[in-house]
Amino acid sequence: MASLRKLTDLVGGELKGDPDFNILQVAPIDQAQPGDITFVANPKYLVKLEKCQASAVIIAPGIVPPENINLLVCANPYLAFAKILTYLQVPERAVKGIMAGAHVAESAEIDRLATIYPGCVVGERVKVGAGTVLYPGVIIYNDVTIGKDCLLHAKSVVREGCRLHDRVILQPAAIIGSDGFGFAPDGASYYKIPQVGIVVLEDDVEIGSSSCIDRAALGETRICRGTKLDNLVQVGHNVKVGENSILVSQTGIAGSTIIGNHCTFGGQSAAAGHLTVGDNVMIGARGGAANDVAANQVLSGAPLMPHKQWLRSTMVFPKLPEMRKDLQKMKKRLEELESLLKEK
Amino acid sequence: MASLRKLTDLVGGELKGDPDFNILQVAPIDQAQPGDITFVANPKYLVKLEKCQASAVIIAPGIVPPENINLLVCANPYLAFAKILTYLQVPERAVKGIMAGAHVAESAEIDRLATIYPGCVVGERVKVGAGTVLYPGVIIYNDVTIGKDCLLHAKSVVREGCRLHDRVILQPAAIIGSDGFGFAPDGASYYKIPQVGIVVLEDDVEIGSSSCIDRAALGETRICRGTKLDNLVQVGHNVKVGENSILVSQTGIAGSTIIGNHCTFGGQSAAAGHLTVGDNVMIGARGGAANDVAANQVLSGAPLMPHKQWLRSTMVFPKLPEMRKDLQKMKKRLEELESLLKEK
Amino acid sequence: MASLRKLTDLVGGELKGDPDFNILQVAPIDQAQPGDITFVANPKYLVKLEKCQASAVIIAPGIVPPENINLLVCANPYLAFAKILTYLQVPERAVKGIMAGAHVAESAEIDRLATIYPGCVVGERVKVGAGTVLYPGVIIYNDVTIGKDCLLHAKSVVREGCRLHDRVILQPAAIIGSDGFGFAPDGASYYKIPQVGIVVLEDDVEIGSSSCIDRAALGETRICRGTKLDNLVQVGHNVKVGENSILVSQTGIAGSTIIGNHCTFGGQSAAAGHLTVGDNVMIGARGGAANDVAANQVLSGAPLMPHKQWLRSTMVFPKLPEMRKDLQKMKKRLEELESLLKEK
Repeated sequence: MASLRKLTDLVGGELKGDPDFNILQVAPIDQAQPGDITFVANPKYLVKLEKCQASAVIIAPGIVPPENINLLVCANPYLAFAKILTYLQVPERAVKGIMAGAHVAESAEIDRLATIYPGCVVGERVKVGAGTVLYPGVIIYNDVTIGKDCLLHAKSVVREGCRLHDRVILQPAAIIGSDGFGFAPDGASYYKIPQVGIVVLEDDVEIGSSSCIDRAALGETRICRGTKLDNLVQVGHNVKVGENSILVSQTGIAGSTIIGNHCTFGGQSAAAGHLTVGDNVMIGARGGAANDVAANQVLSGAPLMPHKQWLRSTMVFPKLPEMRKDLQKMKKRLEELESLLKEK
Repeated sequence: MASLRKLTDLVGGELKGDPDFNILQVAPIDQAQPGDITFVANPKYLVKLEKCQASAVIIAPGIVPPENINLLVCANPYLAFAKILTYLQVPERAVKGIMAGAHVAESAEIDRLATIYPGCVVGERVKVGAGTVLYPGVIIYNDVTIGKDCLLHAKSVVREGCRLHDRVILQPAAIIGSDGFGFAPDGASYYKIPQVGIVVLEDDVEIGSSSCIDRAALGETRICRGTKLDNLVQVGHNVKVGENSILVSQTGIAGSTIIGNHCTFGGQSAAAGHLTVGDNVMIGARGGAANDVAANQVLSGAPLMPHKQWLRSTMVFPKLPEMRKDLQKMKKRLEELESLLKEK
Repeated sequence: MASLRKLTDLVGGELKGDPDFNILQVAPIDQAQPGDITFVANPKYLVKLEKCQASAVIIAPGIVPPENINLLVCANPYLAFAKILTYLQVPERAVKGIMAGAHVAESAEIDRLATIYPGCVVGERVKVGAGTVLYPGVIIYNDVTIGKDCLLHAKSVVREGCRLHDRVILQPAAIIGSDGFGFAPDGASYYKIPQVGIVVLEDDVEIGSSSCIDRAALGETRICRGTKLDNLVQVGHNVKVGENSILVSQTGIAGSTIIGNHCTFGGQSAAAGHLTVGDNVMIGARGGAANDVAANQVLSGAPLMPHKQWLRSTMVFPKLPEMRKDLQKMKKRLEELESLLKEK
């Protein structure tokens, strides 16, 4: 619970209403009850506010305010919503230290403000910073370094030598530092190329459930600060993903590819290996980069093309059989015309 | 081992043969030995029966019976096969209680007929119903409720507050309740939107290995009763999948999409976010829903189109270079004709 | 550290330089320091050697050698690189036996030269061979057999009755023997077909992180010797993948499909169920086999077509809207010509 004054201070913006009114929780516009705060980022949902029972609404400036409701006017209502939700509804994590049932190597250095749940196994010479939590069943191999205020959810794995900076979040079963996929043909069979590099996850990186970030063959695979990966994403060895980029679920980035800052890869998209993708590139769902991509583009399809062109091409695709028939008919008519003209 | 009389009672249908004959096991038609029962659902495999050594066969009415073999005639031989296989070859699970090496919070309520294997970690206030089995290494966060006769295989994870109804099956490493992928842009970087909702899995839901069902941002993500998800499937936050639907391996459903009852999504298919897909929709492998889908359709492709139209269009795709050349040639011929006619 | 004489003996080939020079480690050509060995497999990187500080280079015969550097001339420099890297930089694994915090059933037979880390759970009647390592948190169900010198990384799971031959590697969270996806329609709902078969992984198979190999309904799913699977790959029940084949990340093989020897499936590719794919088939990224595939082909697309044809067709795809317009214009011009001719 917090007063509207407190919440306004938290997010900035302007309060039009009762600063002493106490807000219980954040709720979606169609489920909010008295005592709740809701938000409208898109004017088309304004109509829903009329029947909404929320006691307050976060709203962008310039959206015509409804009456009889406290308004918290912010330039970025979605961000304000996220901050208020965090403040009201995310419980503080109690520091519990190394709990019974956790296996931590003698040589590991665990900050006294870290928490390690039962079922975790922490290897030799591992360092874990203050405020970091290892949920049950997390496995940390030898020589890993984990910074401050990281959250490693159940069943996540960090293999030998990898480094996590501060405030890194691993969702359950995220796998950091599995072997890259490298084999040298040796006659009919394959000889495994040992993968002796590491993975580095910089500050504020989040890795989704069951996503896999392969360790480098030599050197490092790196996810730069602020970048977020959704679930079931594959990142090959020696890849570098720049800052504040987004890889949506089931995306695959093949080995040695370099992706810039502020990029977005849509769901089930992909990049082939050894490519360079510039900054501010947005690739639509299922898009596939087969060649280098210059910065500042919105692309889709495989091969990639400007998103609008792709949309137009996909619209023609269902008409291909008809086009083919047309083409054949026209060929015939053309032949008839040609022979007719010859006769004349 | 069971007599044919017993098996006929089990599945219904009509026995043509020796009711006292004892069947040892179910076997595929090309591997069956004396003492085995096999099945023929498709008449084209009838020819294999002639060389088959099985002692009995489950067969649909109207399929011409071979001689010298016991027949179990059923309207749905595949279903009868499944039931007999379950009866003969699925061992009963012994109740073992909370085993040594499991970590169960004091405040958890575990039914005395449940089994919790070593390496499991069960959080505060968790409830686990009778007949439910948690295989080794399962992690249950706080405040989770799990019904009766559920099977949670090794390494599956259920995060805080999620609810599993009865007879739910999680294959190994299925992840229930990981954070949804939600971030609010904050200048150049992203602010994490806390995901404070839950996941509900209704009765008889099965979730495949390494599949991820994200918790809702607010409210719930719900998989309705009888629905089956294959391996490596991604379900985003606030999604609802209706009853008795099927999501085949590597399918991805983006956030807030609502899918109806009796739907099937083929392998590697997808739906974008915030869509509504009606009942009885079948989407072929790799199909991608980018817009709402009305009920009772069989669709493929991305964008979706009627399956038959998609098949025809894909058949034309390899001919595109040829079509393009044809088009250019015809253009030229047309120009020639036009200039010829002008001259005249 | 090893002398160049020692390394030359290890990989074969011819040394042009100082056999007593001691090499510290392998390094990429643009990062190598004095004391390092690097390699050039592709003549186009030769130019980089001029500025390279490495003390030795592995090089193919026929590539013009640079001066002032020790040369190790080999027919297959990439293979030599892999072997030297393994020799210099892969530490020997100490045998540690069954460690405290591992749960091993009484009836399991663990070779005294095996290592089982804390957090592992090993079921009844399991056999584990000499030199095999189970990293922390590995779960082995009952009646599993694991051969010699296998590496099972953290969180990998092997379900009941499955068999791993020698030198098998499971990357973290690889799931072997999850239930196949089989259900018999029973009115509006689905009846689970029990999956009572197993999975067999032959010698030298490697399975990537979070990849899932489903157990057979009846009989077995088999990955033949030398075959390598990347991360997040799905293999359905009763599939057989031949020897020395490669399935790149996020590939999906549906149930009962048989794949030959020496095949390669590119990233995010797929095969439908009940197909046969011949030997030496290479399927490009995102390729999808919907029908049987004859041996010795390089194919791409869905449906599959010769790779070069697919490349040409994808190049035409962005031009479809333009082609459609052209077609319509030509139709009109054709009509005009026809009516003109009629008039005459």
